[in-house]
Amino acid sequence: MENQDIEFFQNLLGSENVYADKAHRIAYAYDATRTRYEPDLIVFPRDEKDISKILGYCNEKKIIITPRGAGSGFTGGALPAHGGIVLAFEKHMNKILEIDMENMVAVVQPGVVNMDLQKAVEAKGLFYPPDPASENYSTLGGNVSENAGGMRAAKYGITKDYVMALRAVLPNGEVIRAGKRTIKDVAGYNVAGILIASEGTLACISEITLKLIAKPKLSQSVMGVFALVDDAMNAVYKTMAAGVTPVAMEFLDNLSIRAVEEKFHKGLPIDAGAILIADVDGNLQVEIENQLKTLEEKFKENGCIAFKIAKDAQESADLWFARRNASQSITVYGSKKLNEDITVPRNKLPALLQAIKEIAQKYDVKVPCFGHTGDGNVHTNVMVDGSDPQQLEIGHQAIEEIFKITVALGGTLSGEHGIGLSKAPFMHLAFSDAEMELFRSIKKAFDPNNILNPFKMGL
Amino acid sequence: MENQDIEFFQNLLGSENVYADKAHRIAYAYDATRTRYEPDLIVFPRDEKDISKILGYCNEKKIIITPRGAGSGFTGGALPAHGGIVLAFEKHMNKILEIDMENMVAVVQPGVVNMDLQKAVEAKGLFYPPDPASENYSTLGGNVSENAGGMRAAKYGITKDYVMALRAVLPNGEVIRAGKRTIKDVAGYNVAGILIASEGTLACISEITLKLIAKPKLSQSVMGVFALVDDAMNAVYKTMAAGVTPVAMEFLDNLSIRAVEEKFHKGLPIDAGAILIADVDGNLQVEIENQLKTLEEKFKENGCIAFKIAKDAQESADLWFARRNASQSITVYGSKKLNEDITVPRNKLPALLQAIKEIAQKYDVKVPCFGHTGDGNVHTNVMVDGSDPQQLEIGHQAIEEIFKITVALGGTLSGEHGIGLSKAPFMHLAFSDAEMELFRSIKKAFDPNNILNPFKMGL
Repeated sequence: MENQDIEFFQNLLGSENVYADKAHRIAYAYDATRTRYEPDLIVFPRDEKDISKILGYCNEKKIIITPRGAGSGFTGGALPAHGGIVLAFEKHMNKILEIDMENMVAVVQPGVVNMDLQKAVEAKGLFYPPDPASENYSTLGGNVSENAGGMRAAKYGITKDYVMALRAVLPNGEVIRAGKRTIKDVAGYNVAGILIASEGTLACISEITLKLIAKPKLSQSVMGVFALVDDAMNAVYKTMAAGVTPVAMEFLDNLSIRAVEEKFHKGLPIDAGAILIADVDGNLQVEIENQLKTLEEKFKENGCIAFKIAKDAQESADLWFARRNASQSITVYGSKKLNEDITVPRNKLPALLQAIKEIAQKYDVKVPCFGHTGDGNVHTNVMVDGSDPQQLEIGHQAIEEIFKITVALGGTLSGEHGIGLSKAPFMHLAFSDAEMELFRSIKKAFDPNNILNPFKMGL
Repeated sequence: MENQDIEFFQNLLGSENVYADKAHRIAYAYDATRTRYEPDLIVFPRDEKDISKILGYCNEKKIIITPRGAGSGFTGGALPAHGGIVLAFEKHMNKILEIDMENMVAVVQPGVVNMDLQKAVEAKGLFYPPDPASENYSTLGGNVSENAGGMRAAKYGITKDYVMALRAVLPNGEVIRAGKRTIKDVAGYNVAGILIASEGTLACISEITLKLIAKPKLSQSVMGVFALVDDAMNAVYKTMAAGVTPVAMEFLDNLSIRAVEEKFHKGLPIDAGAILIADVDGNLQVEIENQLKTLEEKFKENGCIAFKIAKDAQESADLWFARRNASQSITVYGSKKLNEDITVPRNKLPALLQAIKEIAQKYDVKVPCFGHTGDGNVHTNVMVDGSDPQQLEIGHQAIEEIFKITVALGGTLSGEHGIGLSKAPFMHLAFSDAEMELFRSIKKAFDPNNILNPFKMGL
């Protein structure tokens, strides 16, 4: 980057909002992938007008921009892989602008942390359901850009189901509005719909209007232990097809159960094929009880060998302990975790788990699986010795086979993490040439100079 | 259209699937706007391959195509305003391909009538909520293309909330898939998201995968009579902010009540400012009762002077009679109805109704209003003598003022009917030059030769 460019940003934003020094460039080179790309500059817009001026300037000078929330993404969406500017929303654009109780809507800036919004609305009896595992630090701008999911998706859906309207800045600096504070709005193209999950490649989101719902008053947790993982996977979709939609319906396979037990000694059933942990909610005790009854019936019809209902918050926390600590525990199987968030239609879960088992045997790697079975989203972890290039290569081959079977089962490469850099090499497994060509045309329609997070998503 | 073009289509589809005669050209010149544009040809694709070949040929020959479901749209989306071919889905592509009970998903061709799907899934205990007033004849392809709403939107959302995946044919003839049979899918741009509500201008939808939900077992209807329309509008959003979300929350203003009474003599409260009619649903009687209790409380706190709960199906039908017959009754005020489906945030309903009253006085026209207040969607009808050009001109001026106040209140030109031809002249009221320019860029990305339903939506 030339000095005159840096001066432009310093004049525009004040030097306190422009970092060009090495230490900061290193600090903004990372995300949760642990891959590293140093930006030339980090700038902190104070408002939408700043974003507009920054983008307008960069568009003219063909300077690459990477928008960044908390940098907690798993696929490199916020990494400045081709240098240029990191546009960071954390410093100034992190305000909850409005909680509109009458229309049950929140208006936020993109840098607001997910949990900060959850807490603010719950204090008013309202509820913002999307709860990615990163909820304590990831930002809503990032959540929208990746279309973040979470555990509650089984019942409450994902980020896109809550985005009513966006304001955004196009690469040419023009501000656009998309959507309205209304349930219905069919005027013009659904631009908000395509900005969601676009991974910061089409426009910079500058304001988000989110739907809120009434907070359910009651909830209760259950756990079912299954001898066979296949039985557990059948229980998932058969329970839901019976009309019960748990808030969350999570699972751990045998390897994940063993890993948590090895690390925490909680007395988990280490010979079980899988455990399912579910939460149900509602406003009336009888609603809760009806759901628990169906859950118990369907679980037991499908090979559940032990069924436990949590009696209080402590018992609930105990049931959830294994699931919450699965991710950190599976490192007992290897220093490097190649983790993917594949998703299949729920009734394909048994076939998926069987295929993963066979792939693990073929490559002689451990592949513990856990995750959001209620929506078909399985966190699949190929564990290898990260210091051994041969093991890494084998791990990547296993991942590619897992992606292939996922796509063959009607599933997706990514349920919630996005494509970014990490999954870009696999896009050809899931999309035809015509589909990739369409993506490139859409990218060009928004960003003809290719300045906004370019070359991500395999584009 | 040249003879060789007609021959191409006859060879491809068989002459029984190609209509070029005057009678058929007249029959396919209409939609619910009653505006008339004759196509040169009507063709009936038998499958996706046919669509692909038709589009590929037309793209090369620059022949304009207008996709058509049932032709029941209110804004001219299915009108061949620039001639060319009408691509009609009603004859062959009207099959329900699959009702997947395990994943609670339906797969349909675009020509399936909405109500046919509703009945087929309800027979299996499942539920497809979107219920546009045209549900008995409009097709799901049209519903998706216009993002149709309906009465149940207040609780269950609109068409876009049920579209999981689409197959579509691009103008160049390439087939694309968008979305998956999964709740979560964040790989690639959300192309399904932008095809919804694109009014057949971007691609031809060839297959639709829809989310289904469990059918609630119970429902009950209530009616509240309000002396003042303002009170009724306050009651709507205050009830919903209290945590009760009725399936439907509909209203009639005084003029609409009087019109129905004049036509049907049902003993309606002709001095009331408004009536609200609501349905609540659930699986347990206690859930229903809890909702009814809150509804009664909030209605009465906000000026409800008579509150009635329907005891059975007959009483429920009686309560709904006025709403269901409002549209046909208001013709007592004029032979021509300039009807719009404006939508505002719910708490702006009182201000909107007040503004409409003032506009009606200013132009000395009757403007009966009714509709889906639960989601802020008001069917606004400027009634004029259709044979009097001066009255028509005055009516259009009143409409323009209504649009302006709607947009100023944070609302939209269209909650469910789309823009098409009818509302195209008003797009500048709602969208900036930059937003319109972006729409044009998106159109070009999908359809560089501008063959697919061109010049609609003000593009």
